[in-house]
Amino acid sequence: MTKVAIAGVTGAVGQEFLELLAERKFPATSYKMLASARSAGKKMTFLGKEYVIEELTEKSFDGIDIALFSAGGSISKKYAPIAAKAGCVVVDNSSAFRMDANTPLVVPEINPEKIKEHKGIIANPNCSTIIGITPLWPLHKINPIKRLVVSTYQAVSGAGAQAMEELKVQAREYLDGKEVTKKAFIHQCAFNVFSHNSDIDENGYNVEEMKLVHETHKIFGDDSIAITCTCVRVPVLRAHCESINIEFTNPITPEEVTAIVSKAPGVKVVDDRKNNYFPMPLDASGQDDILVGRIRQDNSIAGNRGINLFLSGDQIRKGAALNAIQIAELLIK
Amino acid sequence: MTKVAIAGVTGAVGQEFLELLAERKFPATSYKMLASARSAGKKMTFLGKEYVIEELTEKSFDGIDIALFSAGGSISKKYAPIAAKAGCVVVDNSSAFRMDANTPLVVPEINPEKIKEHKGIIANPNCSTIIGITPLWPLHKINPIKRLVVSTYQAVSGAGAQAMEELKVQAREYLDGKEVTKKAFIHQCAFNVFSHNSDIDENGYNVEEMKLVHETHKIFGDDSIAITCTCVRVPVLRAHCESINIEFTNPITPEEVTAIVSKAPGVKVVDDRKNNYFPMPLDASGQDDILVGRIRQDNSIAGNRGINLFLSGDQIRKGAALNAIQIAELLIK
Repeated sequence: MTKVAIAGVTGAVGQEFLELLAERKFPATSYKMLASARSAGKKMTFLGKEYVIEELTEKSFDGIDIALFSAGGSISKKYAPIAAKAGCVVVDNSSAFRMDANTPLVVPEINPEKIKEHKGIIANPNCSTIIGITPLWPLHKINPIKRLVVSTYQAVSGAGAQAMEELKVQAREYLDGKEVTKKAFIHQCAFNVFSHNSDIDENGYNVEEMKLVHETHKIFGDDSIAITCTCVRVPVLRAHCESINIEFTNPITPEEVTAIVSKAPGVKVVDDRKNNYFPMPLDASGQDDILVGRIRQDNSIAGNRGINLFLSGDQIRKGAALNAIQIAELLIK
Repeated sequence: MTKVAIAGVTGAVGQEFLELLAERKFPATSYKMLASARSAGKKMTFLGKEYVIEELTEKSFDGIDIALFSAGGSISKKYAPIAAKAGCVVVDNSSAFRMDANTPLVVPEINPEKIKEHKGIIANPNCSTIIGITPLWPLHKINPIKRLVVSTYQAVSGAGAQAMEELKVQAREYLDGKEVTKKAFIHQCAFNVFSHNSDIDENGYNVEEMKLVHETHKIFGDDSIAITCTCVRVPVLRAHCESINIEFTNPITPEEVTAIVSKAPGVKVVDDRKNNYFPMPLDASGQDDILVGRIRQDNSIAGNRGINLFLSGDQIRKGAALNAIQIAELLIK
């Protein structure tokens, strides 16, 4: 008897929740579809049943067991504690509670045991964190990571469904020689690359970059890892890539890394040097697995302790909705 | 009395040679337009004068003073020595002679003095090398760089004019829901990201990555700099970006880096944190200057010796044609 509510059901992640719940045959006994007043009253069909989208209010969570939130940080901040108080467990996709000491921040492949410590809210990490660190965890357990230098190639989907539409509209406008329409981003995304659109702190780092630093420390339970990160948007629809340079504590070979990562859950090695076939967002899109390749020794680090790799993972799926559903599945277990 | 020949005049870089020669009022007394047999006989106009494109042969360089080569490595390998023997100075845009001990490899902002050592051929570095290291040189002179971790976001123009056309054609096909046509690249470039399309060595590095390592050592005259690099193509037409993590020998602040880079020739600082305005390929396209921004301390390196920055430069211009023309200008001086 698991009653599930979805807050933000009309968004890109909300829609992916539905797809995954169906695909994975999630054992819910009922669903409640929640969104803003704008969408309330609209009808939708899910698994052959018709639903009327309801407005998210303080009363929405009475009798609900699990609430999947993906309606933005301010909505989570207000309603997740209300839902928790109503006896519901919230899996929150926003950044609102990620660094809260009382809220577990969980990647099921890494720290599933933290779920038990929840006090009504479990936070889903940021997309670039999940995608970057899921393949690194089994390596870190065997050979502690000392330092990471990460450069991201992030899809526009992280900014929502309207940003994905904007990329397509802009691409056509650009090809037609028309002026490009900008709404979701201040910069043109079609045929361009720009520094991540999040706020920038006094040290010059944007919020996306610092999320990767702080969330990795919390999820790995290890503040000693030195991490530096550059987050960049590229004109790709829904899968992120990351170029990661790793300094390990002890020597490690690319063959050892490949062997370990090959066995890691949620990860697939795509590293075909002969055919120049490596992780690409086009291949990662719609996939559960994070694709990892370009695994090679970095001899700019002494003592065979350096490794470079390049990975790609679906931002909406493992970067958001899938990770949350996996948490919900563990909750039910 | 400077007679100039252009080998590969019909290509993307060849066309940019013409634009720059006109724009910079290059003091040539005559031009000879050379290309493959396929283009020979075609007429073209340059600076109000009509030219007939001639087929590149062993006789093409008699009486020529400076030959600008951009017709591919095998053409350079065969014809650059012939041109040099005919008394002409070749500025070669291919990789054929870059690592040859008798051939200077020159970025005019870095090592113009090497031009004097030429024995008939001067090599133009690879695009991602020029764009990456021109802003780094004035820093290295003051505070020697110990290590670089570079991740590139490379435009398709490096693969020639047909690759630029392919990106546009593919983007439209993709938007129209059609199957995408692939010719210049084995992977779809529109709305995708892929590892650089050059050959991969036994250690897993592609040729583009090793060019950046070896060429930087030669141009800086310093083999001690540890360099690791990941080269990636993004769906951008003609300007590369690079995310660069720098470890210096001595402490340095972002303010010092900004002050030094601001004064560097061929470089412009674009680092507006308040407005989230940083180097973008769309802004760098068609510009002579390399745009540098996101200059910030990297505290994952001890002792305030770490700096991150992000830059963008026009691949066809400073990455190829402009650098070659600058060399030719110094030759005339």
